[in-house]
Amino acid sequence: MSEHTNPNIWEPKFASRTDKMQASEIRELLKLLDRPDLISFAGGIPDPALFPIEKIRSAYQSTLANVEDANRALQYSVSEGDPKLRNWIVGHMATRGIECEAENILITNGSQQGLEFLGKLFLSPNDTALVTAPTYLGALQAFASNEPAYDELKLEQTNRTANSYSQSAKAAGGEVKFAYVVPDFANPSGETMNEQARQNLLKLSRELDVPVIEDCPYSQLRYDGEEIASIQALDIETCGSIDNSRVIYCGTFSKVFTPGLRVGWVCATRDIIKRLTLIKQASDLNSSAINQSVMLYLAERLFDHQVKTARDSYRKKRDAMLEALQSYMPKGVSWSKPEGGLFIWVTLPKEIDTSALLKKAVDEEKIAFVPGHAFFVNDDGHNTMRLSFSLPDVTQIEAGIKRLAKLVHSELA
Amino acid sequence: MSEHTNPNIWEPKFASRTDKMQASEIRELLKLLDRPDLISFAGGIPDPALFPIEKIRSAYQSTLANVEDANRALQYSVSEGDPKLRNWIVGHMATRGIECEAENILITNGSQQGLEFLGKLFLSPNDTALVTAPTYLGALQAFASNEPAYDELKLEQTNRTANSYSQSAKAAGGEVKFAYVVPDFANPSGETMNEQARQNLLKLSRELDVPVIEDCPYSQLRYDGEEIASIQALDIETCGSIDNSRVIYCGTFSKVFTPGLRVGWVCATRDIIKRLTLIKQASDLNSSAINQSVMLYLAERLFDHQVKTARDSYRKKRDAMLEALQSYMPKGVSWSKPEGGLFIWVTLPKEIDTSALLKKAVDEEKIAFVPGHAFFVNDDGHNTMRLSFSLPDVTQIEAGIKRLAKLVHSELA
Repeated sequence: MSEHTNPNIWEPKFASRTDKMQASEIRELLKLLDRPDLISFAGGIPDPALFPIEKIRSAYQSTLANVEDANRALQYSVSEGDPKLRNWIVGHMATRGIECEAENILITNGSQQGLEFLGKLFLSPNDTALVTAPTYLGALQAFASNEPAYDELKLEQTNRTANSYSQSAKAAGGEVKFAYVVPDFANPSGETMNEQARQNLLKLSRELDVPVIEDCPYSQLRYDGEEIASIQALDIETCGSIDNSRVIYCGTFSKVFTPGLRVGWVCATRDIIKRLTLIKQASDLNSSAINQSVMLYLAERLFDHQVKTARDSYRKKRDAMLEALQSYMPKGVSWSKPEGGLFIWVTLPKEIDTSALLKKAVDEEKIAFVPGHAFFVNDDGHNTMRLSFSLPDVTQIEAGIKRLAKLVHSELA
Repeated sequence: MSEHTNPNIWEPKFASRTDKMQASEIRELLKLLDRPDLISFAGGIPDPALFPIEKIRSAYQSTLANVEDANRALQYSVSEGDPKLRNWIVGHMATRGIECEAENILITNGSQQGLEFLGKLFLSPNDTALVTAPTYLGALQAFASNEPAYDELKLEQTNRTANSYSQSAKAAGGEVKFAYVVPDFANPSGETMNEQARQNLLKLSRELDVPVIEDCPYSQLRYDGEEIASIQALDIETCGSIDNSRVIYCGTFSKVFTPGLRVGWVCATRDIIKRLTLIKQASDLNSSAINQSVMLYLAERLFDHQVKTARDSYRKKRDAMLEALQSYMPKGVSWSKPEGGLFIWVTLPKEIDTSALLKKAVDEEKIAFVPGHAFFVNDDGHNTMRLSFSLPDVTQIEAGIKRLAKLVHSELA
């Protein structure tokens, strides 16, 4: 019989996968940055001023207005998700050039849960996931429990062949299982894949015979330029049907409406959706029925209007940040010019380490950002940072970038 | 380049764990049994007549009443869960004899998600989970993606020693990682572990040096008899503090209030909660903030009242079912006499296969139940069935059991 007083008593009993599941430095950091005296470019969360609070209140009232609807909204429900919401999403996917049916849609708790399920569905330990550098940190966390290896996906011209990816994956102890991208206004880079890059990725995925996970949380938030066809739509043009497509699309209502209800979706072949439904059932039975009803209410009445409102507001903020960067940043600093989304990616001269800079920025200038290194699976990005323009207002953005630029100036002096 | 037209195109690419994730026969069955002309004893879901709809409506209104609260409820939130809700649960755990702090609580999407996280935290492939026979099917599904082995936990007197469990686990290719029980009014058996059984289990867990997962979805729903101390409370009496305890407690608001909001919790050492918080973050970032606020509103104002209402209603239904079984079932049929929960477990003579009986029950008598075999990890239970008394009213219960008994009579004739 053993008695424990050590707080880590169970450490030896944990599954090996837990070694890969470390607290995200960036998320720990963000907790410290939640200070009202800071101008924060760190968050990357939607602007609450855009939440349609009145409409959401009406939506909950409506969902609970009669006993029959209320009983359905408050009960356990099917793991696939609310059939009516799935049908609305079918219509929405059509606006993105993707013809599908309700059986191609699974409702998830935000797209994060979709990513976690896909990791579980495809990755055995030491299998390789192809990801960009930088990439979305949450995806790396979602995949981590499956103990994968990563290889860098280059979206521009590259001399990597399918065979070289296969060989590397074999050397890592598994095989390539999928490529993961955020094609539109990526977190963290703000970059958008052009159509050629999308076709190149599809070609690579066919050569490797692996799926592409197309994560589209920001795709509605385009502020200028022409919409580029989604990778799934491009694939369907070639393969003829969603049920033959190798692209798995992750969507969410979090960025357009609100992340507080936790409603997102996956769109894929019905075989994959069936598999994911089993995973959903095992994971948490079903997403909140009432929140699905409310999201349907909002989507039916307000989606286009809400997209327009968000675009108009974020466009101004993006413009303010780009203008301030242009006005204040010294030579040798460059940044992405995103056509949408919430992020601008800044590259400083090599000699500046943005993790060290953050400490000074917070202490001396009361400015927060996310050091870019956090988004790399390799040792790159130490001189990069992610700036989000979603939360501060345009005056704060101007003032904040000015202060940040002052600090960069003094680092370079 | 390969083009696929087969619906199972990705099968060869799936991780090996997906082989273990089969559609639950019972859940597929339940879809067919959702027919209004049936009297269903199959479901096991809470009675919607008990949902406090008016209060839930007020709770959403209140949470969205002012901009500051609404913005918090509609935004991303911390993975650990709403601090105020965690504090309320601390108070609730105290009523169960468990002294803990907010750091010992993680909010999950119902207790199902807690079980899934615990499987992920402890089980490597071929590790052994000790479960009762029968056991909660959802737990088996929650653990399945980790490809565990199972060994049968006997709660009554047994000649299995800790060493024999260890040896079997070794033979299965891993080690014993935890014991899982539903101690109060178990799904599906309706049985409650007495204090001696709880102490015996703790002794075994100490000898094996493994945690006990104590799943308590029904613990508030006691209709008569004295409450028995929770296994976690008994363990804390011995080890002195929650942070030394080997018991991991899973709770939920689903059975007392509503499952539609997906709010449950895990109570464990703060080290385990920290680990589970990382898993939560990777899985879906956080549980719905608005639903957590609403559940806090309900719990603060209504918990005791709601528990009493539910007890009074379910007690009558349980009594009606026990009485009808007594009146109508032939000799050779036995059943559990649960002091709470939603289920009665019926054992028929060996020659009756309840899967075959179900077909006749549905076709000839318009009665549904769940064949007991579904709840066993071995080949047992073919002559058993789970009856839930939660959904039908007392008149339907009386009529339904009468018809079911008639069918059993004719099978034995």
